[in-house]
Amino acid sequence: MAQDMTLLWCSGSPPCWRVMIALEEKKLQGYNSKLLSFEKMEHKSQQVLDINPRGQLPSFKHGNIVVNESYAACFYLESQFKSQGTKLIPDGTEEQALMYQRMFEGLTFYDKLSAAIFYDYYVPEGERLESALKRNKEALVTELKLWEGYLEKLGSGSYLAGKSLTLADVIVFPTVATLFIFGLSAERYPKLGEYYALMKERPSVKASWPPHWPENLMGQDTLKDM
Amino acid sequence: MAQDMTLLWCSGSPPCWRVMIALEEKKLQGYNSKLLSFEKMEHKSQQVLDINPRGQLPSFKHGNIVVNESYAACFYLESQFKSQGTKLIPDGTEEQALMYQRMFEGLTFYDKLSAAIFYDYYVPEGERLESALKRNKEALVTELKLWEGYLEKLGSGSYLAGKSLTLADVIVFPTVATLFIFGLSAERYPKLGEYYALMKERPSVKASWPPHWPENLMGQDTLKDM
Repeated sequence: MAQDMTLLWCSGSPPCWRVMIALEEKKLQGYNSKLLSFEKMEHKSQQVLDINPRGQLPSFKHGNIVVNESYAACFYLESQFKSQGTKLIPDGTEEQALMYQRMFEGLTFYDKLSAAIFYDYYVPEGERLESALKRNKEALVTELKLWEGYLEKLGSGSYLAGKSLTLADVIVFPTVATLFIFGLSAERYPKLGEYYALMKERPSVKASWPPHWPENLMGQDTLKDM
Repeated sequence: MAQDMTLLWCSGSPPCWRVMIALEEKKLQGYNSKLLSFEKMEHKSQQVLDINPRGQLPSFKHGNIVVNESYAACFYLESQFKSQGTKLIPDGTEEQALMYQRMFEGLTFYDKLSAAIFYDYYVPEGERLESALKRNKEALVTELKLWEGYLEKLGSGSYLAGKSLTLADVIVFPTVATLFIFGLSAERYPKLGEYYALMKERPSVKASWPPHWPENLMGQDTLKDM
């Protein structure tokens, strides 16, 4: 059935990576995978615009059904392939509640990360302010401490909502990986470091690792003093 | 069972309103409802921080379970009370896919709205720039046209994912209502105007209407030329 699926993506984009991990966990290998170049503006190309009027990646199609938003695609895949591969929404009330809470806090986590490391991308030249970037970095530190605390409370070897991998991990892990690739110190954030190490070994993560990492990456020490 | 539930909220906050509509649709009236004042900084009060380390509203508790993020609370309520009140996640594959897609595009919609009407709240004095606010307003216009097109395609009397109300409406309607309260022209955006009129009559929306609207509101013409 994965032959009916097409994913347009770019390397190193956390939203794209979420969908790729979900596809792997749901045993949907064999989908049509099209790697596009963000630098060449291929996310604004006609093949993307045909599926996604926003001209954004990921863009995802299953038969005639289009689900482009990364959270939406992850929910859709879990719902359509409930009994295939990893069960990504747990049955237990408490674990499920925690999964929902963390996956949506993951939006803020990703926003704070982006505002700190992609500041120059989002803010046009001439409008950039040291004071704003400084505030963004401070907000990321506050955010990091929250997540470090969440993981500490759950204990060693835990996923974000407990003992099993859930949609929360599929969604939030690419943000955590990006932090470490951009130089975050695992000594200063040991629980996040442990979580990163745990997830990195997962076959779904290995199979979908951004192909240009780390050799071909700028800014690998951006977060080292954070 | 709603007596076990506590919602801390403030009037006119789209994220709070989402959860209130979900509670109404799931027939969970009778929950402990605590209206707090954003102006008096009550979202940073101890009663909020005890539930929500972010000091944000909504903050929501059901027994010992805390689910503060508005999307998370809506998913949680639908999952825990599936067969009670309105069914908010449709069974049909296409309708479900469209629901997920629109509810997560709803994040962008709300962000663009906030960046245009709450600019002075988010950007400190001394960092505010006419060029940035202008760009934010242009981005909101682009966004409005997208949603106007989505509704046009679905035809008159439709909800956001088809013929029945879903989580997409619970989530996105408060954004649409805020647009019109801040002066958006229903003549210029007739499909959004129709959708607003349709939803406004829903008992869940009437029961949860922000108590300070419209009498006690600033900025009611902010969006009139948009």
